[in-house]
Amino acid sequence: MNFLSDKKILLASKSPRRKQLLKDTGFSFTVIKGKEVDESIPEKITGKDVAIFLADLKADAYTNEIKENTILITADTIVCLNDKILGKPKDYEDAFNILQSLSGKEHKVITGVSVRSAEKQISFADETSVKFKDLSKEEIDYYITNYKPYDKAGAYGIQEWIGYIGITEIKGSYFNVMGLPVQKIYEILKKFA
Amino acid sequence: MNFLSDKKILLASKSPRRKQLLKDTGFSFTVIKGKEVDESIPEKITGKDVAIFLADLKADAYTNEIKENTILITADTIVCLNDKILGKPKDYEDAFNILQSLSGKEHKVITGVSVRSAEKQISFADETSVKFKDLSKEEIDYYITNYKPYDKAGAYGIQEWIGYIGITEIKGSYFNVMGLPVQKIYEILKKFA
Repeated sequence: MNFLSDKKILLASKSPRRKQLLKDTGFSFTVIKGKEVDESIPEKITGKDVAIFLADLKADAYTNEIKENTILITADTIVCLNDKILGKPKDYEDAFNILQSLSGKEHKVITGVSVRSAEKQISFADETSVKFKDLSKEEIDYYITNYKPYDKAGAYGIQEWIGYIGITEIKGSYFNVMGLPVQKIYEILKKFA
Repeated sequence: MNFLSDKKILLASKSPRRKQLLKDTGFSFTVIKGKEVDESIPEKITGKDVAIFLADLKADAYTNEIKENTILITADTIVCLNDKILGKPKDYEDAFNILQSLSGKEHKVITGVSVRSAEKQISFADETSVKFKDLSKEEIDYYITNYKPYDKAGAYGIQEWIGYIGITEIKGSYFNVMGLPVQKIYEILKKFA
């Protein structure tokens, strides 16, 4: 099924989850370390626009470096509760407060993706709604202590224990919540064949 | 978090996926081989009632064998397209036809679960809607040839390649589609503590 066998795909990401997801989708690619970028978000943009802005920002760092027959993929995942973006937790207390704010409520996970070659670029975002049950203090404490979700926006990973015991329902793509909307990426990559 | 540490949990299932899901939910348990049962479904029952009926049937095979402080879990997953139950495919052609019938449409995956101790029993079902994009003949052929989904109701596994490239959206629990509604089981097991 590799319709891009004559192309070299680069995934600029530090996330082991994104690497695994793209691999399981059947693509051959090389992971390159994402460049550090200033992730300040312009005022007045929200939701999907923020995720696309951040994915584009990560890709912009490679402007003029994308060689012929090469495709660069960058992505950024944000977690929004009532339009407020929840970042990665600074410490235990911050993680606790974030998870408590998600408890019993529905929030949105949005992943922005930028796909670029020397000739063209396509950016898009995918949104999934995620609903948590009422989490007890003991459950939140157990999760943070054992899983240390300090590298995760929204302070949780859906593929970890808290996703198993705490998430009652999602609407959209599960893999998007994990960090990469692989079904949509598969379709977009066809346009680069 | 093991609130059932004084209980022995038995999972009667041949499915490696169910075993992994229950393990990742944090429970200690023993897998026992499910007994063979006659899975004829009574006329006039549909959807969730069928899944619960089949889970109960599997548990019934252990009547009077459940010892004190033991909890037995059985489950059955069915796939329904417009109220028609799609079974496991008999051969390549059958798998092809099933996947072609799911292509471009939404269907339901229902897992029935029976949880029993010597004192009580709770049975329930969880339903997830799953939407496939229009699958090409090449995609269906590639999937069947490489993943041989002959042990899977509906002829697919959401956690396999076709789930990555073909499923655009789900509504409900992802793990339920894999074979076990672990969030609901976690809540039910609390009642057996």
